[in-house]
Amino acid sequence: MLKDLSPLVSLCKRRGYIFPSSEIYGGLAACWDYGPLGVQFKMNVKQCWWKEMTHRQDIVGLDSSILMHPKVWKASGHVDEFSDPLVDCRDCRFRFRLEEKIKTCPHCGSKNLTEPREFNLMFKTHAGPVEEEASQVYLRPETAQGIYVNFLNVQSSMRKKIPFGIAQIGKAFRNEITVGNFIFRCREFGQMEMQYFVHPEKASEFFEYWKEQRKKFLLDVGLPEKSLRVHEHGKNELAHYAHKAVDFEFLFPMGWKELEGIHHRGDFDLKQHQKWSGKKLSYFDADRGETYLPYVIETSIGLDRLILSLLCSAYREEKVKEETRVLLALNFRLAPIQVAVLPLSKKSQLKELAEKISGSLMKKWRVEQDESGSIGKRYRRQDEIGTPFCVTIDFDSLEDNKVTVRHRDTMRQDRLSVNHLEKYLIDRLST
Amino acid sequence: MLKDLSPLVSLCKRRGYIFPSSEIYGGLAACWDYGPLGVQFKMNVKQCWWKEMTHRQDIVGLDSSILMHPKVWKASGHVDEFSDPLVDCRDCRFRFRLEEKIKTCPHCGSKNLTEPREFNLMFKTHAGPVEEEASQVYLRPETAQGIYVNFLNVQSSMRKKIPFGIAQIGKAFRNEITVGNFIFRCREFGQMEMQYFVHPEKASEFFEYWKEQRKKFLLDVGLPEKSLRVHEHGKNELAHYAHKAVDFEFLFPMGWKELEGIHHRGDFDLKQHQKWSGKKLSYFDADRGETYLPYVIETSIGLDRLILSLLCSAYREEKVKEETRVLLALNFRLAPIQVAVLPLSKKSQLKELAEKISGSLMKKWRVEQDESGSIGKRYRRQDEIGTPFCVTIDFDSLEDNKVTVRHRDTMRQDRLSVNHLEKYLIDRLST
Repeated sequence: MLKDLSPLVSLCKRRGYIFPSSEIYGGLAACWDYGPLGVQFKMNVKQCWWKEMTHRQDIVGLDSSILMHPKVWKASGHVDEFSDPLVDCRDCRFRFRLEEKIKTCPHCGSKNLTEPREFNLMFKTHAGPVEEEASQVYLRPETAQGIYVNFLNVQSSMRKKIPFGIAQIGKAFRNEITVGNFIFRCREFGQMEMQYFVHPEKASEFFEYWKEQRKKFLLDVGLPEKSLRVHEHGKNELAHYAHKAVDFEFLFPMGWKELEGIHHRGDFDLKQHQKWSGKKLSYFDADRGETYLPYVIETSIGLDRLILSLLCSAYREEKVKEETRVLLALNFRLAPIQVAVLPLSKKSQLKELAEKISGSLMKKWRVEQDESGSIGKRYRRQDEIGTPFCVTIDFDSLEDNKVTVRHRDTMRQDRLSVNHLEKYLIDRLST
Repeated sequence: MLKDLSPLVSLCKRRGYIFPSSEIYGGLAACWDYGPLGVQFKMNVKQCWWKEMTHRQDIVGLDSSILMHPKVWKASGHVDEFSDPLVDCRDCRFRFRLEEKIKTCPHCGSKNLTEPREFNLMFKTHAGPVEEEASQVYLRPETAQGIYVNFLNVQSSMRKKIPFGIAQIGKAFRNEITVGNFIFRCREFGQMEMQYFVHPEKASEFFEYWKEQRKKFLLDVGLPEKSLRVHEHGKNELAHYAHKAVDFEFLFPMGWKELEGIHHRGDFDLKQHQKWSGKKLSYFDADRGETYLPYVIETSIGLDRLILSLLCSAYREEKVKEETRVLLALNFRLAPIQVAVLPLSKKSQLKELAEKISGSLMKKWRVEQDESGSIGKRYRRQDEIGTPFCVTIDFDSLEDNKVTVRHRDTMRQDRLSVNHLEKYLIDRLST
């Protein structure tokens, strides 16, 4: 179990998963770049979520823009409510987000603090060539509103009947006062949100349904049950839009933290957009002969947080013969490289056989052929990047057409004929 | 051939491809939302590019953040050079981008105009809880710089040898003075860029190589050769960073316009970042025993522009028995729905057979089962969304286990046994 994030941060940089943004300029706080393995891992995670959500008849996808009409954020409540209490230290001028327990400046220890005032977390910018109030727009702080304002366009163009959902993956931006914990709290981050539109009487039932579905997904994707817990929001915790809300919390090295939220939002959002836009957003339900504003059940997960929780769960350090072996025990489905093909030497005959094998495995899986460095170093690298299987080709392979398959988690090695390789791997893919 | 964009804009909205952003609030200029079919189409286009670029040993992927350290844009030249000439009309106060031919206000016709001044096209915002100059950051106007600043991190973590490339798909933002032509010029748009790092002596050779590769890609993905032409930049046209540059132009309804650029950037970018960051970005070439700053060949295509060119190329209107048939003749590979399964009636026996067939085809392809409306209307919808094949199930199907396959482009119909369906489709997939 990972006790703090630093060995993971270091592995991620060393192995091409995640780099600090603009690192040669000293970095930009709370922004991170996904390297070659990170971008593939992220794609795999997104694809899992997208498949789970949209490969069913009742949910369709959407990709709405980051810049939206500024009234959207008046209607949603973000202009008035989306803020954190900000405090200045009068002595050292340090500025920070007030937490209940903080009574002294975290920078200099002074108790000479200003009264907290509300700091809005939306990034502001101007669209068009005039910098005046009328042109002010925001970077969206969540993807959900892009779904609500498109509710009618999606419903009518896709001829959808209630209940149905709209799913979206996209970037969101929050100008957090306090940031940190690697990719846990970023100013720029990915969200995967799904809004499910239902008849008001069915809302409670679907809230329970989505709670179950999402738990199943989090386990399926590889999070251990003991690192997950459900936190139900009490009356005082509920956001202004929520009837009911639960969070799935994950046990990160820095403690239990929110990973995904399931929210019963009632008709708050559609009602607000109807009011502010002056457009009717109600739905005529032909089966019930009834016109109503649908209720919404939302599932909302942070993409980077999910990635962090998966990496934390997968990270292992083991003692092997006085040395420390580091590995990422990632799901086969999610691993950026699924099979590594390693010819023992750079001799052309071994390389040719390796290329033949890589080429054939590549039709099914993500394969890397690696020829440089000692075989021990190459195994160490594949362990660290989370490759489930290494296929090693040695000089005997040229004679007996057999290769050695090494398993990442157990380091077990099996020797088998090249002809049986594909079936051997398929039989051992549990996930 | 599409003469103006309006029928396509209308189809895109009607059929769930692309909606105006925040439409219920009157829209937000130059921002668009991809609907359920649009998002799938966009994913397919991105995947084609990603596969083409990264499924080879010498190119890896990256996903860098939109917000970057502000010095990046000093180094790149964007703070000083990335601007358009802006003119105000002194009579009606209309503000517009000066084009050579414009001498009167496009709004009121007055000749009483201000001298042009340079308007920087980068969106500005502030990161962190203090709005002062030190916290000012930009929304990236291109994805390329994210690649340059990560050059060393990628090279060393992935142990890459020159020549190698880094590919990235992501959003970029330009605060254009004048916008329009649907998704051709958006303030928020997708870019697909690849930077190929080479030895200086090899730059011209690789420039030619990438010109060929990219032309092949544009044809492969479905653009007709007659709608593509190459424009070579003259000495006066070259951007400040470019040694050589060509554009692939596409014949849009509004004329020949830039679609993709191939740029020989020399060592401009790495040299500038080396200078501004104070970090050495040179590469030691073990094979040559030489240390140098690599030269860069860039390929840069607008994702939304590529989507628009594909939709324009695919759009057809035909007279069929006095009626107009509209269709999108999309590639099988790119079509959001590849096969539609249409039971002739909602009777449960037909529906069951349809579900069996859909379920089996879904293992290979993107399939939609559609039961609502007359079969004529359903064909019309599938034509308009670009579905290559419709499989129709009628009452006879229950007796003879045969179905009718209708081809989108020719409207030809073949009747065949369900058992032969998969092979029949495979044999007819040219792309």
